[in-house]
Amino acid sequence: MAGSTYGTLFRITTWGESHGAGLGVVIDGCPAGLSLSEEDIQAHLDRRRPGQSRYTTKRSEEDRAEILSGIFEGRTTGTPISILVRNKDQRSHDYGKIKDCCRPGHADYTFNVKYGFRDYRGGGRSSGRETIGRVAAGAVASKVLGELGVRLTAYTRSIGDICIPPSEYHYDCISENALYMPNKEYAEKAAEYLETCMRNKDSSGGTVECVITGMPAGAGEPVFDKLDASLAKAVMSIGAVKGVEIGSGFRASRSKGSENNDAFFRDENGVHKRTNNAGGILGGISDGSPIILRAAIKPTSSIAQEQSTITNDGENTTIVVTGRHDPVIVPRAVVVIESMAAVTLLDMLMMNMPAKLENLKKLYK
Amino acid sequence: MAGSTYGTLFRITTWGESHGAGLGVVIDGCPAGLSLSEEDIQAHLDRRRPGQSRYTTKRSEEDRAEILSGIFEGRTTGTPISILVRNKDQRSHDYGKIKDCCRPGHADYTFNVKYGFRDYRGGGRSSGRETIGRVAAGAVASKVLGELGVRLTAYTRSIGDICIPPSEYHYDCISENALYMPNKEYAEKAAEYLETCMRNKDSSGGTVECVITGMPAGAGEPVFDKLDASLAKAVMSIGAVKGVEIGSGFRASRSKGSENNDAFFRDENGVHKRTNNAGGILGGISDGSPIILRAAIKPTSSIAQEQSTITNDGENTTIVVTGRHDPVIVPRAVVVIESMAAVTLLDMLMMNMPAKLENLKKLYK
Amino acid sequence: MAGSTYGTLFRITTWGESHGAGLGVVIDGCPAGLSLSEEDIQAHLDRRRPGQSRYTTKRSEEDRAEILSGIFEGRTTGTPISILVRNKDQRSHDYGKIKDCCRPGHADYTFNVKYGFRDYRGGGRSSGRETIGRVAAGAVASKVLGELGVRLTAYTRSIGDICIPPSEYHYDCISENALYMPNKEYAEKAAEYLETCMRNKDSSGGTVECVITGMPAGAGEPVFDKLDASLAKAVMSIGAVKGVEIGSGFRASRSKGSENNDAFFRDENGVHKRTNNAGGILGGISDGSPIILRAAIKPTSSIAQEQSTITNDGENTTIVVTGRHDPVIVPRAVVVIESMAAVTLLDMLMMNMPAKLENLKKLYK
Amino acid sequence: MAGSTYGTLFRITTWGESHGAGLGVVIDGCPAGLSLSEEDIQAHLDRRRPGQSRYTTKRSEEDRAEILSGIFEGRTTGTPISILVRNKDQRSHDYGKIKDCCRPGHADYTFNVKYGFRDYRGGGRSSGRETIGRVAAGAVASKVLGELGVRLTAYTRSIGDICIPPSEYHYDCISENALYMPNKEYAEKAAEYLETCMRNKDSSGGTVECVITGMPAGAGEPVFDKLDASLAKAVMSIGAVKGVEIGSGFRASRSKGSENNDAFFRDENGVHKRTNNAGGILGGISDGSPIILRAAIKPTSSIAQEQSTITNDGENTTIVVTGRHDPVIVPRAVVVIESMAAVTLLDMLMMNMPAKLENLKKLYK
Repeated sequence: MAGSTYGTLFRITTWGESHGAGLGVVIDGCPAGLSLSEEDIQAHLDRRRPGQSRYTTKRSEEDRAEILSGIFEGRTTGTPISILVRNKDQRSHDYGKIKDCCRPGHADYTFNVKYGFRDYRGGGRSSGRETIGRVAAGAVASKVLGELGVRLTAYTRSIGDICIPPSEYHYDCISENALYMPNKEYAEKAAEYLETCMRNKDSSGGTVECVITGMPAGAGEPVFDKLDASLAKAVMSIGAVKGVEIGSGFRASRSKGSENNDAFFRDENGVHKRTNNAGGILGGISDGSPIILRAAIKPTSSIAQEQSTITNDGENTTIVVTGRHDPVIVPRAVVVIESMAAVTLLDMLMMNMPAKLENLKKLYK
Repeated sequence: MAGSTYGTLFRITTWGESHGAGLGVVIDGCPAGLSLSEEDIQAHLDRRRPGQSRYTTKRSEEDRAEILSGIFEGRTTGTPISILVRNKDQRSHDYGKIKDCCRPGHADYTFNVKYGFRDYRGGGRSSGRETIGRVAAGAVASKVLGELGVRLTAYTRSIGDICIPPSEYHYDCISENALYMPNKEYAEKAAEYLETCMRNKDSSGGTVECVITGMPAGAGEPVFDKLDASLAKAVMSIGAVKGVEIGSGFRASRSKGSENNDAFFRDENGVHKRTNNAGGILGGISDGSPIILRAAIKPTSSIAQEQSTITNDGENTTIVVTGRHDPVIVPRAVVVIESMAAVTLLDMLMMNMPAKLENLKKLYK
Repeated sequence: MAGSTYGTLFRITTWGESHGAGLGVVIDGCPAGLSLSEEDIQAHLDRRRPGQSRYTTKRSEEDRAEILSGIFEGRTTGTPISILVRNKDQRSHDYGKIKDCCRPGHADYTFNVKYGFRDYRGGGRSSGRETIGRVAAGAVASKVLGELGVRLTAYTRSIGDICIPPSEYHYDCISENALYMPNKEYAEKAAEYLETCMRNKDSSGGTVECVITGMPAGAGEPVFDKLDASLAKAVMSIGAVKGVEIGSGFRASRSKGSENNDAFFRDENGVHKRTNNAGGILGGISDGSPIILRAAIKPTSSIAQEQSTITNDGENTTIVVTGRHDPVIVPRAVVVIESMAAVTLLDMLMMNMPAKLENLKKLYK
Repeated sequence: MAGSTYGTLFRITTWGESHGAGLGVVIDGCPAGLSLSEEDIQAHLDRRRPGQSRYTTKRSEEDRAEILSGIFEGRTTGTPISILVRNKDQRSHDYGKIKDCCRPGHADYTFNVKYGFRDYRGGGRSSGRETIGRVAAGAVASKVLGELGVRLTAYTRSIGDICIPPSEYHYDCISENALYMPNKEYAEKAAEYLETCMRNKDSSGGTVECVITGMPAGAGEPVFDKLDASLAKAVMSIGAVKGVEIGSGFRASRSKGSENNDAFFRDENGVHKRTNNAGGILGGISDGSPIILRAAIKPTSSIAQEQSTITNDGENTTIVVTGRHDPVIVPRAVVVIESMAAVTLLDMLMMNMPAKLENLKKLYK
């Protein structure tokens, strides 16, 4: 049990259900002395809010963040930052078959087995709203990282088969389309594809990519707590994610050593690599190049087609999952993936501080 | 720091360098009452041993496991099981440029930055020999899982572009070819491809798949400690792994909800799913279906071609990495991936024990 | 950093400052299926509330607990239980010298050094109000333990030199006096002593004892996570506690083996010990006898006498700490100590579940 | 389960039984760049070795430490340091009733309940020899602390009723008497008392004190991971310890605020306290004054008198525990307590590194 805490030195604990009183996060271990306001949190929360386009749900969730602790006179004190988002849209409605059945692709069946029963309202703890706490924490981690010169950029790389080649990335248009894609033409094609899915009462998967620049070399621990392993867990822990890769990823499995190795060289600005198939991580440790990770996101499980399933009591039945559901989760996952990466990178930077005796001497002698 | 411990209730701590006195693992939290002998460990270690074929290094490593603690009269006592493997092949040789340069694709550069210097002999802690402790621990975890009816099967799914379609898997021939592939013909094709790589002083990547049957439903924690997230970390923490996917994985990103959702049904044997795109995990919790995971493994970084790089002091230079190196890491990674999966699954089964009040009552009242 | 989480399987994370928006706790890992209401929490919170007697502060803190998550239809769901207590008594007042000085006996100086500055309002995070989250969590843990037949009883054993001998304990009068002492006469003597302290603008220390019955044998891990070691940390982590002992405790250091050893015997009700100097714990593992622990609590640091100290800038000065302060912390610490013991015992019972292979088989085969 | 690992960033994992192949420790997270040799470890191990005086057992244990990993060219590499001590004195002898009975004061009964059976040879995992791993780790932690100017001094403060008043401490004579007491006359009195105990087939308890100077202010986390709470767990986790106190400890419970508060002042050397009742820790955070802790140690449980007990099968019987046993554990516990304190302090210093944003900037910008 007890799986709602993440991180060691920068540690977040989330809580809350889709249709309970609210959701939130406690961020423990944020360094003291950071300027932080509710607006900093809100800016990130707004990026995951539904109701922003045709492709995200129409629910009018306000998701206002309230900071309950850990800030004094506008700065973090070093003590836990508790953030609360009240659920607004809790009108009781008829949950119908959802109450009694296990929706395919959802956690209804496994919650039933694990806990003996479940909060069936809107998916309960396994709702996408669970990510609110992650995003609020990510906002804080990103701000700390920003102070150290680390920048994160996440975006939709593909929806269905529509995949933007890296040569056609235009980062400045990410926030200009509802799908958070770094290319306007591909975003339009993807939008058309989603229209077709919606007409067919269907949904689509996609991939998200996150690039992190300015990451100091040296973060990440050899063996089990490698930086890439930690990022993999962070990202795979997000609801609909079914795969994670770093750098050349699965492509590396089809390539040769002479193609995949990144040659080092030095110029007047320091040490670099001619390519970055490693995705900024060698031996589990950041190498100073951009960190590149990708996540595969499955299509929305809630679809309005009839599906075979079982009741809570194990009887065969069918279900049509009605209600307001995104035809694609990917655009809303973008900020969540960025958030989990931010939390992980900051924690690993902290973990790395005592790696050398000279670092201890620098701070304590 | 401190990244050499993995797991919470079933917890393993590995140690050791390629050319130090030895390597080993301490397994803490193994349940008392399991029959266990050095032969149980050795059988798994032998599966990762080099020198078994043309495609694995010629080093005559014996890798004999000695159990130093935790066993009494043939059974585990519940206290830590310490396993030691002495390094045999430590003849001092001229490390040449390896001592002074950062090999592309290796952790030499990042260890230098993180720790200020490195044990350059055979890769030190970042050597593939580091996995000895993982495999020894996996042998113990697998035996406990076996007592609960859980079976793990791992194999090479692809080498380069040669990929076996699931319809042509023959599990019984996995151990009959040096590449641990579940299909004799594909294994032969892959062998030919590797011959070409070797002639070209090059290496190849590939993928490993692991299938776990008999896993009870209910293991895995919602949110951060999802079963798939934990497996992703476990597998991505292995040296050359650059990607991990569960069930339909990256394919899910290109599919539709109507294709990817697995319909539930019940028959006289219980609850099942018509398909298993979820890979046995829903909402981060095992659903009783086979768990399916895949890992992408990069080509061996050590190749005998000349590569550009830098010295420890940051000067531009070139290097040819000579010595005995596998042209492909994949077959030796098979048992390592299986081992990390075993350790993770057992830990998660233990973590799940107090999920329901009735479980506590069953054991304590 | 990140010191606000406690426990492994039953894990609590507290947050909040004395004069911020509120305080609270997230309880992760509570078994599913427990009946739980806000009244269960409130009953425990009311035991630590000030304003109940002459010896506790006059602040009219209501401390109403609101459960924000983790309960559905009156039962725990297995997901995090978030509990919020809004601060009511936040009227801004002149903090005077407290803002600029380090109060002797308080954490002002160490917070300044550690974090660079501090929230000086009412002690901020190091206020006694921090224990609200602990007590709310303890209420939940106690209820689970109650389901397993485990009962906790805590009380004031001594105030200053007035110490009740065990032969004169009357547990039924604990809640009948404001000092939570299990003896009416001693409580009256202690009250008189406190009157004198108050007249002298002084304060008093004391000791709290906690007895736990019905604890199953077998909980606690050999070596570092011994049950007594875990209890020691749990109790010593409470603000004013300066010492912890188990069973015969410091008395054992003055006794002989022939006196301190507890002889085992068996009667028709099972195995017992003739004495209980071990305090219910042998080798770090519960032995089925009552667990007995004691804590030494220092006198309230805030006293109305003039004391020498320094300013935040390190200048010598004097301070008189005015305001509403308990002349003794001990009675309010009683429920806090009981709470920390409850959380620890439940966590250790959970940790013990996979100790034997047969336990795993009982739940999974 | 899994209670053999201690610490977060400086993390130790011990293993081994009294009469198995050996005992040892894996130290993970030691900063890179520390000079370290087997002699450094051996010097500490020799302080706990038996056979040094009339008051410690006559077993000729050599306890030679072998470093298996983590050192390269005489310096720590930042990777796990594995230390092995082979058991030499394993001659098989008749364990007689010890095999079949539960010795009073020992963990025999609780191991039986917890694990279903036990390794009865010499106490197995619950033997005093378990501390070998702690002491080896303490040697390493102490050396790192020494580089930062932190010095630990531990000694026997009392045996039975013979207790040295602080005013009569002479630290330079600690290592000149077999009891490690800082006063020659008290050591002689204690020796006489032990002679009487031995003649009566009895044993004695005592207390150990540890003083740490040079500890930087700021280490220790508010709330659960307070420095004193962590020290309490560290010390209480040692076999025979039944109580722990910090600074004025249990005396604080009998004192007044005006007596117990330590006044701050500043002179040309910085900030100090006029007294040190706090024992160097305020609000769970080190304040720069000497840290003072005391542990109560029970009398040796193994005594040659007849005692009532039960067999493994729960039948009433009697036992006389023969063999070579110390009449007092205290002197041998001195170095163990010092070791656990060292490991804890170093871990907390590491944990404190990211407390302030400016510390992160110091190391990463």
